[in-house]
Amino acid sequence: MIIVFKPKISKRDETSVLREIRKLGYKPHIMRGVARTVVGAIGDELKNKSLEALATQFPEAVESVMPIQKRFKLVSRQAHPANSTVNIRGGIVLGGKKFHVMAGPCSVESEKQLLKTAEAVKNAGATILRGGAFKPRTSPYEFQGPGEKGLKLLAKARKETGLAVITELLSETHAEMVAEYADIIQIGARNSQNFQLLIAAAKTGKPILLKRGLSMKIEEWLLAGEYVLANENPNLMFCERGIRTFETYTRNILDLGAIPIIKQESHCPIVIDPSQGAGRADLVFAMCKGAVAMGADALLIEVHPNPAEAWSDGAQQVTLEQFAKLMQELRPLILAAGRV
Amino acid sequence: MIIVFKPKISKRDETSVLREIRKLGYKPHIMRGVARTVVGAIGDELKNKSLEALATQFPEAVESVMPIQKRFKLVSRQAHPANSTVNIRGGIVLGGKKFHVMAGPCSVESEKQLLKTAEAVKNAGATILRGGAFKPRTSPYEFQGPGEKGLKLLAKARKETGLAVITELLSETHAEMVAEYADIIQIGARNSQNFQLLIAAAKTGKPILLKRGLSMKIEEWLLAGEYVLANENPNLMFCERGIRTFETYTRNILDLGAIPIIKQESHCPIVIDPSQGAGRADLVFAMCKGAVAMGADALLIEVHPNPAEAWSDGAQQVTLEQFAKLMQELRPLILAAGRV
Amino acid sequence: MIIVFKPKISKRDETSVLREIRKLGYKPHIMRGVARTVVGAIGDELKNKSLEALATQFPEAVESVMPIQKRFKLVSRQAHPANSTVNIRGGIVLGGKKFHVMAGPCSVESEKQLLKTAEAVKNAGATILRGGAFKPRTSPYEFQGPGEKGLKLLAKARKETGLAVITELLSETHAEMVAEYADIIQIGARNSQNFQLLIAAAKTGKPILLKRGLSMKIEEWLLAGEYVLANENPNLMFCERGIRTFETYTRNILDLGAIPIIKQESHCPIVIDPSQGAGRADLVFAMCKGAVAMGADALLIEVHPNPAEAWSDGAQQVTLEQFAKLMQELRPLILAAGRV
Amino acid sequence: MIIVFKPKISKRDETSVLREIRKLGYKPHIMRGVARTVVGAIGDELKNKSLEALATQFPEAVESVMPIQKRFKLVSRQAHPANSTVNIRGGIVLGGKKFHVMAGPCSVESEKQLLKTAEAVKNAGATILRGGAFKPRTSPYEFQGPGEKGLKLLAKARKETGLAVITELLSETHAEMVAEYADIIQIGARNSQNFQLLIAAAKTGKPILLKRGLSMKIEEWLLAGEYVLANENPNLMFCERGIRTFETYTRNILDLGAIPIIKQESHCPIVIDPSQGAGRADLVFAMCKGAVAMGADALLIEVHPNPAEAWSDGAQQVTLEQFAKLMQELRPLILAAGRV
Repeated sequence: MIIVFKPKISKRDETSVLREIRKLGYKPHIMRGVARTVVGAIGDELKNKSLEALATQFPEAVESVMPIQKRFKLVSRQAHPANSTVNIRGGIVLGGKKFHVMAGPCSVESEKQLLKTAEAVKNAGATILRGGAFKPRTSPYEFQGPGEKGLKLLAKARKETGLAVITELLSETHAEMVAEYADIIQIGARNSQNFQLLIAAAKTGKPILLKRGLSMKIEEWLLAGEYVLANENPNLMFCERGIRTFETYTRNILDLGAIPIIKQESHCPIVIDPSQGAGRADLVFAMCKGAVAMGADALLIEVHPNPAEAWSDGAQQVTLEQFAKLMQELRPLILAAGRV
Repeated sequence: MIIVFKPKISKRDETSVLREIRKLGYKPHIMRGVARTVVGAIGDELKNKSLEALATQFPEAVESVMPIQKRFKLVSRQAHPANSTVNIRGGIVLGGKKFHVMAGPCSVESEKQLLKTAEAVKNAGATILRGGAFKPRTSPYEFQGPGEKGLKLLAKARKETGLAVITELLSETHAEMVAEYADIIQIGARNSQNFQLLIAAAKTGKPILLKRGLSMKIEEWLLAGEYVLANENPNLMFCERGIRTFETYTRNILDLGAIPIIKQESHCPIVIDPSQGAGRADLVFAMCKGAVAMGADALLIEVHPNPAEAWSDGAQQVTLEQFAKLMQELRPLILAAGRV
Repeated sequence: MIIVFKPKISKRDETSVLREIRKLGYKPHIMRGVARTVVGAIGDELKNKSLEALATQFPEAVESVMPIQKRFKLVSRQAHPANSTVNIRGGIVLGGKKFHVMAGPCSVESEKQLLKTAEAVKNAGATILRGGAFKPRTSPYEFQGPGEKGLKLLAKARKETGLAVITELLSETHAEMVAEYADIIQIGARNSQNFQLLIAAAKTGKPILLKRGLSMKIEEWLLAGEYVLANENPNLMFCERGIRTFETYTRNILDLGAIPIIKQESHCPIVIDPSQGAGRADLVFAMCKGAVAMGADALLIEVHPNPAEAWSDGAQQVTLEQFAKLMQELRPLILAAGRV
Repeated sequence: MIIVFKPKISKRDETSVLREIRKLGYKPHIMRGVARTVVGAIGDELKNKSLEALATQFPEAVESVMPIQKRFKLVSRQAHPANSTVNIRGGIVLGGKKFHVMAGPCSVESEKQLLKTAEAVKNAGATILRGGAFKPRTSPYEFQGPGEKGLKLLAKARKETGLAVITELLSETHAEMVAEYADIIQIGARNSQNFQLLIAAAKTGKPILLKRGLSMKIEEWLLAGEYVLANENPNLMFCERGIRTFETYTRNILDLGAIPIIKQESHCPIVIDPSQGAGRADLVFAMCKGAVAMGADALLIEVHPNPAEAWSDGAQQVTLEQFAKLMQELRPLILAAGRV
């Protein structure tokens, strides 16, 4: 920790602050500069208490307190310099040379809707089927998903197509049930700091796809991921899905800059969800192209046979035909990005 | 719903859109204006599917789709024109003429720390004791709270002082346990759209204090509250605790404008948490004064006998002496605001 | 500046960074901690070049670079520990014990509209008349203000009522003209970092009211104010008018927390504009009460004889009757806040 | 305009609102729906006054007022369905099939620095030289640019290399001088709603590159561009350079989604500035790749022979070697995007 003193403080104040620093387990190291005196508090910030209260407890003496250690460990690039890969099932490996596309409807609605979509996205080149069985809805009066019935349909679609399955976990009490059917457990943006859910998901041992919260800082996202790895589950993928800003033209702003940043800070794969990110099907194409070019490991795309009549989020789902066209347009970019 | 057509669309496109509107359960009503043709889709937006997908499904024809109904019902001022009041325990009624202060440490740390604080805040005029037994922490390596042991200490402090007790619920699986000890169940900002937790909390029948999420719109907050009332628990209080913005001077921006807005839209009481809101003890005084003057029903303030050595969030906790002084300074403003 | 090294860097990298630090005019002081080595670069940050490029120029060696000096000087509380006061005209002093209210229409529309409003706000207790002669409008097709004709009307209203006059300056080329008529020159939110305009305004010698930009950090606001004081004009007032966030219920979020923060960091008066802040007349009352209770020095309120027919921003203007009522309701709070 | 009434309003209130709508120049058209009565106000929103004040002037009767017309005209895709192209000079045409790169130092510092950079970026494939002669700086104590001397050096570099020149205009009073030297006039983010500057720049007749403001909505940006076209200058380019959000990992979030949105709403070219966008040289590569893949017409990149010693913004400038490497890496993506 670095403690910056105010310009002219009394000897007595200085002594009090230094005493408190020692009491909290750090060794103070004083540097007298031109405009400010600065104290380096030597000690492990992750083991000792924070010194940040000094600024408010000694308001006459302390101007600011700055931590210097990064707070995440296991997810960090330092802990694991090579890219890590996640084995989903049957040879599907995320984070390696092969670029993957996860696609499917926002909500599982019916057997017909799901199987038709699964078949189509598979033919277009997707390897993983998405579909919500439990849906977190802003209003209690909106469709909350088909529940376990939806999970069974996903399993059936997997059996028929060979696609792996990703679906969202909403409740700690469903962790085992969802893990029974899913190949990847998705933690949604609204639950990205629901640490109890993260722990329950991690303990199933299944690969976890962790979406970024609506106003989650990169550091907080990495720390939420740390909850997964610290609970002995190394199979973590980060998924950017758009952040909340002042802009109202689209529902969210897809932060594609998160791709190089996650690659720099962490060894875990990064997935982009352009459907949530834009909230508008007509922007999905360009978003996908940007994501591929910038080094994403996979895409998560909402696809529906008839979006206008979807039971949830119709505005952001692309049709089966649009999806097939998109996959073709992505091909040259996937190659140009050095992926297959 | 209002559907705005693009300026020059073909008759055929118009017919297709109108057919889809009817198919989705609405009766279209056409208005031809000077610059745009607009369709009013007559039907209950809360019962029918959304028409928002029309804009992306008919991109050549539809410019925008605007819902007109408010999505919340039970929490709305319309549903209950008078202010509602919440009975906490033993004559403590929130939302009435009496202004209440909830105060106590961020985390329950020890019997001595808690009882000393409880005694002091009671003497200064608080009626409700706060204290975290389960703490949601950004990092898995930070202190996660004392758990049930903390709940027992809160119950002991209640017995000794007569203060009511508020504490946070983090996990669906703890709902019954927390309800056994607490007089008010707090749902924290990070769980404000953890709908499963909201439902579990509501079902205990205990009064619920629902904090606003870090980037939660007013409408989303009201809808999260709707999850409580829709699960047959009318004892809901909203709590503003600061929103996330671009500003880095303070951790959050306390949105005091939420007070008149919640009062206008809803009948439920509104509580202000200036400690989380500012993240800095030195700003708490002014924030409390503003909240009282603007019509808040209660304050939720973090108080600690020795904030510099607190196990969590020391920078935002005020000392026992500061709290007593604050309560005195608030007195004339409480009276000027027409409260007692 | 504090330079934090990455965990395991080569001796050679360390030497290169230290050499560069010296080359840029600082003396490096090394602290070897438990988890990180940190360098304190001793030297005046305001005179030397920034070291912030080190992190990107030595990406293998440097983790982060943190400035420690505050960048503002003349506006700082340190430079002038007492509150400064601004003499507007004829005994109107802002920043002292007397609380002031500036009120008037968004735009000057006609002699009748302006004089009627001026008379009414004076009778209700305002001391300063506001009114836009030059209006910055988002669209080129909206009413841009009456120009110099409006300034003349403001001067006439001053003569008839004795109120001082505040009006906005939009263009460097109008600085002298506006200064001829106005007692206070307002710099609007959209021009808050138009430094050429700030300099031109400062040079007129007139008191300056500097609105906060829509997404301006406190530090940037203070630095924009520094442009005024550094151009030899000590008569600066800061004006909070709402910041831009994700919330769409109101046009802006009025950041009342800026009051104690500006009071802490600066000696200059702080004014609150609740009309722009809320964008809705029905919220203005509560906002004004909060501002008074939290220690603002003045309010800037939009008042119009018939807001529904105003030529600009009708939704946020209060009527003459509402304004008179508001002034009465503020009275006890002004006294409770220790003002007159 | 659409006016939504509150659920149960009196006949008298309804009549008053309808009278006011007529008075303001619109013809009301009533639609009685299931849950709400809605009024379509028929009339040209761009010529008549706004009805938005109705909601605050009739708070018991009017729930909300929604405009339906888009406020921009000349910049809109509707006004000019084909992409427009901008002739810069000597065969350099922006917005056509050829992808352009503008590159050069943040500030013009010396003849040697500028010529060396110009030579290098030209050899690497850039066609336009950037360089700041007038710099808008957050603090009055930072380097404000070399002024006209810098303009002369830019002209010299153009003469020696054949590159076109882009430089920023800060002050209305410099418009003619800057136009004398520059081929493109840049309006910076902080001046993006300095409408007087936009008008002065437009009137020079030179091509204008309009950066997006830090918290500027797409609609506001288009309307700021409208100020250029409405002042008879058709040569407008939009430039996304990052928006301000809650994230602190990077200085801004580059909103690459602006590319397809501007292409959809407008006919004007879109340029991406990844240097300002990220504020960190190490992220520039990925940002450029995303921009190319998503359909940008050009890039604006900061390049410096020795960024660590740059007089401004060293952290975000790439070296001459990095720039050459970047241009090579972009090549396959430019082709994959169908550009040359």
